Amino acid sequence: MLNAVERKIEQFIAELNDENSSNLYKQIPHGKRLRAKLILLVSNSAKFAIETSAVVEMIHAASLLHDDVIDNAFIRRNKPSINAIYGDKSAIMLGDILYSKGFYELNNINVEVSKVISNAVVQLSLGEQNDVIMAKEFNSNRDNYIKMIYQKTASLIEASAEAGAILANEDREIYKTYGKNIGIAFQMIDDILDITSSADTLGKPAMHDFKEGKTTLPYIYLYEKLDDSDKFELISFHAKDLNNDELNWLLDKFKEHNIIEFCKNEAKELVVEASKLMLKEGNEALLKIAKDMIDRDF
Amino acid sequence: MLNAVERKIEQFIAELNDENSSNLYKQIPHGKRLRAKLILLVSNSAKFAIETSAVVEMIHAASLLHDDVIDNAFIRRNKPSINAIYGDKSAIMLGDILYSKGFYELNNINVEVSKVISNAVVQLSLGEQNDVIMAKEFNSNRDNYIKMIYQKTASLIEASAEAGAILANEDREIYKTYGKNIGIAFQMIDDILDITSSADTLGKPAMHDFKEGKTTLPYIYLYEKLDDSDKFELISFHAKDLNNDELNWLLDKFKEHNIIEFCKNEAKELVVEASKLMLKEGNEALLKIAKDMIDRDF
Repeated sequence: MLNAVERKIEQFIAELNDENSSNLYKQIPHGKRLRAKLILLVSNSAKFAIETSAVVEMIHAASLLHDDVIDNAFIRRNKPSINAIYGDKSAIMLGDILYSKGFYELNNINVEVSKVISNAVVQLSLGEQNDVIMAKEFNSNRDNYIKMIYQKTASLIEASAEAGAILANEDREIYKTYGKNIGIAFQMIDDILDITSSADTLGKPAMHDFKEGKTTLPYIYLYEKLDDSDKFELISFHAKDLNNDELNWLLDKFKEHNIIEFCKNEAKELVVEASKLMLKEGNEALLKIAKDMIDRDF
Repeated sequence: MLNAVERKIEQFIAELNDENSSNLYKQIPHGKRLRAKLILLVSNSAKFAIETSAVVEMIHAASLLHDDVIDNAFIRRNKPSINAIYGDKSAIMLGDILYSKGFYELNNINVEVSKVISNAVVQLSLGEQNDVIMAKEFNSNRDNYIKMIYQKTASLIEASAEAGAILANEDREIYKTYGKNIGIAFQMIDDILDITSSADTLGKPAMHDFKEGKTTLPYIYLYEKLDDSDKFELISFHAKDLNNDELNWLLDKFKEHNIIEFCKNEAKELVVEASKLMLKEGNEALLKIAKDMIDRDF
């Protein structure tokens, strides 16, 4: 079914009848298509599941194109990003084209699905903005972090699961909660991997987030554990290019206070909550997606 | 009724529940609200006319935010643009927020209106891309220019008139044609004003387009009239910061070949076509909008 989604995206792009957009789109490497998988699995491939999946993946691609411009990110999935190769302007414009074509196609599906997906895009746009604003200062507020990653990452994953449920006439709330939980866990794990992975396995420099000003969950929890003098030290490292001694200080402190384990457990708890819902529904495939998320690269 | 549109936009922005977006939005100067006027006048203020107008003006504002980033434009309506004050990233993100909120609200209106508006956003996104691509070389092809300004500017004006007709159960094709004609004329006139106005009346440097690589209609027609040696001279001026002698050469050639008059007449013809349709419909207000367009600043 994922192949059918790829063909549908290609069809939507071809309908633009615009050579430049087609050429640029071909150069975006596919991700894992998590959102499409959720829609297909939750909806049990009901009518419009392929179209909805294609739209959501186009919208997701659009959001990544704009994110990479905003984050000055030149690597995406181990390849140079579109903004790295063709400049920011090309990435902005291709993002706008994919967004608008996606929104247009929602009109041919179902108004409830369209509301859920477009509301998620509002949330992810707000989340991207809040991510940037929050990066200006060290953030020690866990709730603000959770709200921001919900908006930036979980909202479209949540919407994908809910849209699948709408298409299949299943209980929207159950799948929405499932999607929200694995979506928040997904971003938490991503943020942990920024600290635990080397540049090679993730395809981006390790501990890049904090240098960019992003106070992710491990930093928030570390801050809570440190004494006042060390708190001051941690804040002084915010949004800075750290030398080896400083990096090692950070890694030692993470270890001393068992922060990474603690954060992993928090992500796992969310996935367990999501899994319980799928156990109850007897949906093995969605259980497996949740399980694979925890196992990812740790 | 335009006041009601402003209030509706403010409501939509307030619903985002996001302080930063509200603050930024307040700093965008309003334009003439041409698109809202068209929707209100064509629909005779039918049900959803206010909501549709608000959405279209939010989408228009979003497109200008992104255009100003893409064109490196620091002046918009005689004021510093959002990208000039807060940087490109803020303008991109606010644009995404306004776009997505606009698309979300279309779901609460009418699926036909939603299709027409979102298709126009696809077109204007493609048009912006083509504008940038075409600016890389001197363009002597009138059809490519007309297609690009149709996409970039006329598509949303056309869609506004058509959406108004849908809301009021009027003949869609008539108002669509009216909107397309005045939309193309609007951009032609804008492009002429870039040559005929001083920086003071338009709020941007005169003859800025050609310096940016944009071969607008007057340059295309001038090219057609010039002998081979002067053609070569004209092309050598493309996308260059011209000195006074070169600028005067250009202005002399425009005058010698009566180019500006010729272009104005072409724009007028489109407006006359649009006016004939409104004469037939007996719609005085839309006749006046067309007339005012021709009179604009010439």
